Amino acid sequence: MPKPVRISLDAMGGDHGPSVVVPGAALALERHPDLRFLMFGDETVVAPLLNAHPRLKEVTELRHTDISIAMDEKPSQAIRMGRGKSSMWRAVQAVRDGEADAMVSAGNTGALMATAKVCLKTMAHIERPAIACMWPTTRGESIVLDVGATIGADAGHLVDMAIMGAAMARIVFDLERPTVGLLNVGTEEIKGIEAVKEAGRLLKESNLPHLNYHGFVEGDDLGKGTVDVVVTEGFTGNIALKTAEGTAKQIAQYLRSAMSRTLMAKIGYLFAKQAFNALRDKMDPRKVNGGVFLGLEGVVVKSHGGTDDLGFASAIDVAYDMAHFELMNTIRAMLEHDPVGQTV
Amino acid sequence: MPKPVRISLDAMGGDHGPSVVVPGAALALERHPDLRFLMFGDETVVAPLLNAHPRLKEVTELRHTDISIAMDEKPSQAIRMGRGKSSMWRAVQAVRDGEADAMVSAGNTGALMATAKVCLKTMAHIERPAIACMWPTTRGESIVLDVGATIGADAGHLVDMAIMGAAMARIVFDLERPTVGLLNVGTEEIKGIEAVKEAGRLLKESNLPHLNYHGFVEGDDLGKGTVDVVVTEGFTGNIALKTAEGTAKQIAQYLRSAMSRTLMAKIGYLFAKQAFNALRDKMDPRKVNGGVFLGLEGVVVKSHGGTDDLGFASAIDVAYDMAHFELMNTIRAMLEHDPVGQTV
Repeated sequence: MPKPVRISLDAMGGDHGPSVVVPGAALALERHPDLRFLMFGDETVVAPLLNAHPRLKEVTELRHTDISIAMDEKPSQAIRMGRGKSSMWRAVQAVRDGEADAMVSAGNTGALMATAKVCLKTMAHIERPAIACMWPTTRGESIVLDVGATIGADAGHLVDMAIMGAAMARIVFDLERPTVGLLNVGTEEIKGIEAVKEAGRLLKESNLPHLNYHGFVEGDDLGKGTVDVVVTEGFTGNIALKTAEGTAKQIAQYLRSAMSRTLMAKIGYLFAKQAFNALRDKMDPRKVNGGVFLGLEGVVVKSHGGTDDLGFASAIDVAYDMAHFELMNTIRAMLEHDPVGQTV
Repeated sequence: MPKPVRISLDAMGGDHGPSVVVPGAALALERHPDLRFLMFGDETVVAPLLNAHPRLKEVTELRHTDISIAMDEKPSQAIRMGRGKSSMWRAVQAVRDGEADAMVSAGNTGALMATAKVCLKTMAHIERPAIACMWPTTRGESIVLDVGATIGADAGHLVDMAIMGAAMARIVFDLERPTVGLLNVGTEEIKGIEAVKEAGRLLKESNLPHLNYHGFVEGDDLGKGTVDVVVTEGFTGNIALKTAEGTAKQIAQYLRSAMSRTLMAKIGYLFAKQAFNALRDKMDPRKVNGGVFLGLEGVVVKSHGGTDDLGFASAIDVAYDMAHFELMNTIRAMLEHDPVGQTV
């Protein structure tokens, strides 16, 4: 029998807390029967929800916590009041203590990152963690990081991110040598921010064995899927991500309004309903929910705070993949082979 | 009779040069019969094209230039070899010398900005120019700047951009007090880059008469049209713009493929053809072509290098509006009333 994949869950995180976390976990369990859960949260709320999902209840250990971190809690406050006690902290701690292989929370990003940094610590040689997300492209999916862990990055941080992103791409896309691009305002070598240019030089010169450095990419290369991994600092990455999400919503709204304006369009919509459903499915942001914190001594996955059970299940899927395919060991191995980031 | 609007054109700029510039000008003239053109370029190429457009030829003065700036020319090189001689320089110079009210070029952005800075100079109290573009939103259009003039910005630059963007919004949208937002990674005041936070404080405290400061906005507010003017530094702005363009293309491709996969979808497409055409029209990037250089002593509009005559005509429309509604005087007046940028 294969080893089960153990996921710890912050049951109180997110806009909807356990009412999304519990059914989300039940959905993920249907897809991955080898999942085992460790849930942290208010047992008076969580236990009754678990009773409604007997299959899930069987594979879940629920541990009571009194404190939950609010969605607008400042990171420092989340640490102060949550240390050792909040559902968020305890779920992260389960990873640190080896009780879980990965942790998922829909709690607020700043608080979760601070908790993860204090509780898990960053990996040796990695100065700052990053958040990586899956980005849908016309040729499949790419990995984009950092989408909001830290603002600003020097060349060394960018190289670290390139290596960690490539490690993630290696296991997610099953590629020996994923292509990596640095996000910039032009593809010529003379353009852009000094740190990006310097990182480009380092990646080019070092010619790493597990990473195929492509060069600079631009904003429109994200949707094209020009490279497997796109690296940028967190401010730009976060704005690019939200701009793309906003544009997708905007076009969906244009489309809805165009299809309901005339009788002919409405008839056309009825005929093409299945095609529209497939399109909606393809553009469903819940399917790519789950930002992976990279650079920590353990796997932490951040779900969108406002998602529903389907979206939360996707975030668990991501955690499952990272744990199952041993993200941590892959990153460690690649950092050992690729010491370029440490020389900066 | 109203005063004609005089536009100078770099006939050699862009991927297609005069073969796009001349028919583009002819199209714009149909919409604005009060246009007068001053074209700079190789007369052996431009003159025959003009002959094919007798209406345009009547209102155009063609001046011969020997030198054109290549699309991959470095800015410094463009100045060195172009000063006083290139079609790009001469067209900018026509604005400086009062022969034209605005200038349009599809030439390369770096070279055009360098030429404009050296030839026109920046406005008093403005340290650095910015490029503003029209951004289609679900409630109409917004102005976004800087989409690529300079990398990085301190609080003072951001405040300058807020004022200049508001001046442009005032004339384009005919608003007394346009709303302005600063692009950031969160809407809370504690988040983001120091310069953005500082600019936010300055704009809030100064409570300017011609600008309604909204606060921080995020990437997804761009498509929503949350504010009339979105301000950010050029690196992030350029990446956001290209990310949105890329996402729009990506979804258009999804849609095309969904509508051609099954017979039912194809039938639906035929019924809804008009709706799809309206949608395509709405998403047509050529319609929002034309980046306005703000902060210079004259109006310069940059067209996409790869656009066609329809797109180039849009860029001329933008230049027309800026000249007709006196962008320069509006900015000057607002800078005088809003001296906050100068106090930083």
